[in-house]
Amino acid sequence: MGEPSREEYKIQSFDAETQQLLKTALKAPSLECTAACFETDGEYSVCQRSYSNCSRLMPSRCNTQHRNPGAVDLEKVANVIVDHSLQDCVFSKEAGRMCYAIIQAESKQAGQSVFRRGLLNRLQQEYQAREQLRARSLQGWVCYVTFICNIFDYLRVNNIPMMALVNPVYDCLFRLAQPDSLSKEEEVDCLVLQLHRVGEQLEKMNGQRMDELFVLIRDGFLLPTGLSSLAQLLLLEIIEFRAAGWKTTPAAHKYYYSEVSD
Amino acid sequence: MGEPSREEYKIQSFDAETQQLLKTALKAPSLECTAACFETDGEYSVCQRSYSNCSRLMPSRCNTQHRNPGAVDLEKVANVIVDHSLQDCVFSKEAGRMCYAIIQAESKQAGQSVFRRGLLNRLQQEYQAREQLRARSLQGWVCYVTFICNIFDYLRVNNIPMMALVNPVYDCLFRLAQPDSLSKEEEVDCLVLQLHRVGEQLEKMNGQRMDELFVLIRDGFLLPTGLSSLAQLLLLEIIEFRAAGWKTTPAAHKYYYSEVSD
Repeated sequence: MGEPSREEYKIQSFDAETQQLLKTALKAPSLECTAACFETDGEYSVCQRSYSNCSRLMPSRCNTQHRNPGAVDLEKVANVIVDHSLQDCVFSKEAGRMCYAIIQAESKQAGQSVFRRGLLNRLQQEYQAREQLRARSLQGWVCYVTFICNIFDYLRVNNIPMMALVNPVYDCLFRLAQPDSLSKEEEVDCLVLQLHRVGEQLEKMNGQRMDELFVLIRDGFLLPTGLSSLAQLLLLEIIEFRAAGWKTTPAAHKYYYSEVSD
Repeated sequence: MGEPSREEYKIQSFDAETQQLLKTALKAPSLECTAACFETDGEYSVCQRSYSNCSRLMPSRCNTQHRNPGAVDLEKVANVIVDHSLQDCVFSKEAGRMCYAIIQAESKQAGQSVFRRGLLNRLQQEYQAREQLRARSLQGWVCYVTFICNIFDYLRVNNIPMMALVNPVYDCLFRLAQPDSLSKEEEVDCLVLQLHRVGEQLEKMNGQRMDELFVLIRDGFLLPTGLSSLAQLLLLEIIEFRAAGWKTTPAAHKYYYSEVSD
């Protein structure tokens, strides 16, 4: 019970004020047993009573001031999350889960989608300026792709990924499969990581574009400049992974993940 | 009916005397309706009668002198076929079918396996001297591998490939996957061709060796000397082919076989 939850852990990477903002925004969905607090405008005694019966509740959360997530500036929260994602690739790998939790909270509490709209708008803005972002900061660009893929992975409607994100996500992956990106290990690494996570879903949404993406990936082996050994291995592995139906065969697993190379 | 059968066509690549030898050896299995000729020691009138009712019978065969295959020197036939295979890679790709036919004929007519024994002995001899063969003639070596794989493919007992051939075939393929062979397109081409034909059966007979073979193939991409573009494509294709369960996916087919490269 003393262990911080995954969201709690991630929140700690923000400054104190933002932590408070996120905690409030996140409160409703992650702390189901405090729903009564929100419904009665956050009466502390109710929360205390709930807490004693709920092993999932964190004392630190229960002691913070209770505010309705709908009362937080959720557009600001969206921007804070995107800004942080562009700077922190570890965070951007898991931010989709936090965003999903906030969207659920807002929808439940306020019946609105300010956060979701704000998030998608920011994603769209960054998407349109992606070449500039890439030129300015390769790490920012890699974080952005990681983030949008993670959002694609988590934000579902009736368990179906959002159609509106399919082409932007594909466009980002196509960008990563261009010759100048394939010569950069960070981008190759990002490409195969995203394909491991969302490749199968993406292919279900648009199989033709996945075929086209793999044409670029295979072509990568024929680049006159050549690929680094690591890049070749990464691409080889994802080619096998997809060919095997988006899974790793035991032999491939042994080769790529278990063996120490000479 | 005027078209020569496949065996007939292949026989024509031999000299006249050998053609006669092979035709006699092949007679029984390929001309089922002349079985009566053999059983009555080749009476011509019986054959003529059979021929009129049989669309698969070739006039040229019916007019050749009938001899019992058991009376032919089948060890000599085996040597002739192996010798020819080592010189003619087109023939070696299909010679297994002819060998199978002769084995069936000998077994049926004479209840013996002189040809089969002679064939396997020669294969064994060539196998033991394979490094010398490769050093002497790369084409001869490639033809030999093609031939032994084709024999593995055709010579079955109760529809199971011959266990005795599994390791020799693997050893040949392992040889083709060594760095010095991977730098030669003829050998890479031969390797992937054989894996296309017999890879799935070989894996069923010994999955661990197939895993080991594919370790060598993947390692090929990391060779300091590098592979030619064609070799890379060939190896990439066979890696995908195996990963997809020894079949070509439509997307892979389009990439490797349909598209004209720029």
